[in-house]
Amino acid sequence: MSGIPGWGPADRTGLTPVAGGVTAVPGFRAAGVTSGVKPSGRPDLALVAADAPAGVAVVTTTNLVKASSCTWTEQAAADGRARAVVINSGNANVCTPHGEEHTRTMATAVADHLGAVDDAVDAGAQDRPAGRVAASDVLVMSTGVIGVPLPVDRITAAVPELIAALSPDGGPAAAEAIMTTDTRTKQVAVEVEDGEGGRCTVAGMAKGVGMIEPAMATLLVVLTTDAPLSGPVCRQLLRGAVRPTFNRISVDGDGSTSDSVALLASGTAPQPPGLEALGRALHAVCADLAHQVVADGEGATRVAAVTVQGAATEAEAERLARAVATSLLVRAAIHGADPNWGRILMAMGTAGVSFDPRRVSVTCGGITVCRFGVAATFDRGQVAVAMDRDVVELGVDVGSGDATATVLTCDLTPEYVRFNAEYTT
Amino acid sequence: MSGIPGWGPADRTGLTPVAGGVTAVPGFRAAGVTSGVKPSGRPDLALVAADAPAGVAVVTTTNLVKASSCTWTEQAAADGRARAVVINSGNANVCTPHGEEHTRTMATAVADHLGAVDDAVDAGAQDRPAGRVAASDVLVMSTGVIGVPLPVDRITAAVPELIAALSPDGGPAAAEAIMTTDTRTKQVAVEVEDGEGGRCTVAGMAKGVGMIEPAMATLLVVLTTDAPLSGPVCRQLLRGAVRPTFNRISVDGDGSTSDSVALLASGTAPQPPGLEALGRALHAVCADLAHQVVADGEGATRVAAVTVQGAATEAEAERLARAVATSLLVRAAIHGADPNWGRILMAMGTAGVSFDPRRVSVTCGGITVCRFGVAATFDRGQVAVAMDRDVVELGVDVGSGDATATVLTCDLTPEYVRFNAEYTT
Repeated sequence: MSGIPGWGPADRTGLTPVAGGVTAVPGFRAAGVTSGVKPSGRPDLALVAADAPAGVAVVTTTNLVKASSCTWTEQAAADGRARAVVINSGNANVCTPHGEEHTRTMATAVADHLGAVDDAVDAGAQDRPAGRVAASDVLVMSTGVIGVPLPVDRITAAVPELIAALSPDGGPAAAEAIMTTDTRTKQVAVEVEDGEGGRCTVAGMAKGVGMIEPAMATLLVVLTTDAPLSGPVCRQLLRGAVRPTFNRISVDGDGSTSDSVALLASGTAPQPPGLEALGRALHAVCADLAHQVVADGEGATRVAAVTVQGAATEAEAERLARAVATSLLVRAAIHGADPNWGRILMAMGTAGVSFDPRRVSVTCGGITVCRFGVAATFDRGQVAVAMDRDVVELGVDVGSGDATATVLTCDLTPEYVRFNAEYTT
Repeated sequence: MSGIPGWGPADRTGLTPVAGGVTAVPGFRAAGVTSGVKPSGRPDLALVAADAPAGVAVVTTTNLVKASSCTWTEQAAADGRARAVVINSGNANVCTPHGEEHTRTMATAVADHLGAVDDAVDAGAQDRPAGRVAASDVLVMSTGVIGVPLPVDRITAAVPELIAALSPDGGPAAAEAIMTTDTRTKQVAVEVEDGEGGRCTVAGMAKGVGMIEPAMATLLVVLTTDAPLSGPVCRQLLRGAVRPTFNRISVDGDGSTSDSVALLASGTAPQPPGLEALGRALHAVCADLAHQVVADGEGATRVAAVTVQGAATEAEAERLARAVATSLLVRAAIHGADPNWGRILMAMGTAGVSFDPRRVSVTCGGITVCRFGVAATFDRGQVAVAMDRDVVELGVDVGSGDATATVLTCDLTPEYVRFNAEYTT
């Protein structure tokens, strides 16, 4: 689990990391296969399926140019119930002539095949009504290049294999199949106990390395839990966990067209924990996945945790921290392990938040480099060493109040530019 | 003069480029010397002085962390009259313990020595009252590193030499002495005739290569004209020229603490042109300097002119163009000569402007790559050639209305990052 101070829930009582991703949670199976959408021939089609209809909530991008999969998924989750999430990588199906139709085709193919399996199982079971899965019970996520027509036939052709591959150990395969330019899979799972006998598991997987500046949503993320949650409760928990995690990270300030986070609750936990413990677990899972996303940011060599404290309100603390975390000059300085606090104050000054520069103090790697708006005395070599780490902490005390917020970003590197100058349209 | 379509005044009738910078204008002298503020020993102190009190207007940064020189200069220009602008490079005198005091010291030293020269001249002249120049008639600009105390004694020691070096040919020396990480001087001058016998000269110099995302002001710019303009008229003309030029450029989205633009009007033109012609001339001069600033952007290999047309209002056109021009992914694609129109739509979608993606068309280097929200048929090699130029034009038609705006930016390169990771605090 992510150990950055200020990142994730302050209280981790009763939270125990466990191995595995989304299928660490009882009641879920997953799979990842190769459909051929990616020219590389790497896995590009993933499915996370609940064994029975699950409680669900989603948040998707606020970008006006929005993937048809986002629109579909919002509508599919509107009734608070869903059965599965199908995800293709290698093509975002955005700005394409038949985008909506292809999204529906994907959902329908998965629903049909899942329903057929249900029927076969139900033929010998007593406790579940027979009947096919509806397309509107299948959420869809697509990620990859924008503007190229999706070869949806390859996906529908691969769906039978995908359904056949569903497994209670399939989480890692699904996490691999949703990668685009990610260099590693991003998964986490945690067991939560509420101290009163209630317990369940919360897990998630994510993808995303660029076009990351979420606004009310982000990237592709699938979260699972075996707690029995209604749609409205899923929604409440999800918004609470996304706000201080995925909505406080930035790789490049570019907000994606396809950001989607879905939480599915199977409800199979015999004695689930209370909502407070569950909320903390979800917060911890989202914080950890968000950290993994930033750490794998395109070209990134280190993560920076920008914590603004002493602000008048949490919203102002967040705006100031975001202004620092999205400044190219600050991010280049982080790459150079340079305690360039002048750039930090410059960035704060553009945030539209009122403060007195003469009350601001700044720490880099825990060492004070600016006190009350002017240079502090510090050993430059010592600070450079403190900043040359996988996670560097930049702290700002505004001196205006008691509110705090942390935003994660990564360093800006020549490799980021080189990579994105060469990435094919 | 900058020849980018949509950049600068549409009507250039009566405008003739002439050689030289700020001293191409009668009534001004300038100088640049070495005071020792820059460790490199390069020129770092400039002065532009009117031969007599001039009409003046300034705009300075909107950054809350604001240089004391900006505050001083605003106050000094408030009465609409000024005599000179003194500029030091190598140290921004921002976030320093004695910033205000040092700014006043600079202005006072220049005023005292200019006044002494006046007195000497006036001893033999009839037509000018004797009397020293007031410190409040001297504008101050400072640029360079933030947070390091300004060695103001080096500047005051160099002022006598600076005054002695003042010359009607001193524009280029002044333009050189205001450079920091600029790789070349930025100057322009234009003669303007209004077709009714009125004529004068408008000129300017600028510096700036990074921390460039002006908001109502920008960089360091000194503009001169020999038209007889009152302070209020200077202000009106300056705001009109800055809005579509310096306020529509971006190198890295980071707004400086020290942005300052000053216009000085000597009033020595015997028969000055009308305000309309003068406004166009000032617009052309600002457009040209702004182009020069972007072309010299840190690490930049080319300029991109992002023109959004067919927007509902000019403000919306500007917001959309700015969103495209400040997207790291778009700017990296420009570096790679990649017609990545999906990133352009993505960036537009984050601008907070309502539009229908299905009505949007995009051209790269004049070739249509996206028509009505989906990929157009184009020859990729041909587009790559059209984009591999010093100035690449990205055109967007929103399909919502008649308004247009152009924003200039430069490509994002590995050299930008390398440079700013290594730049010392």
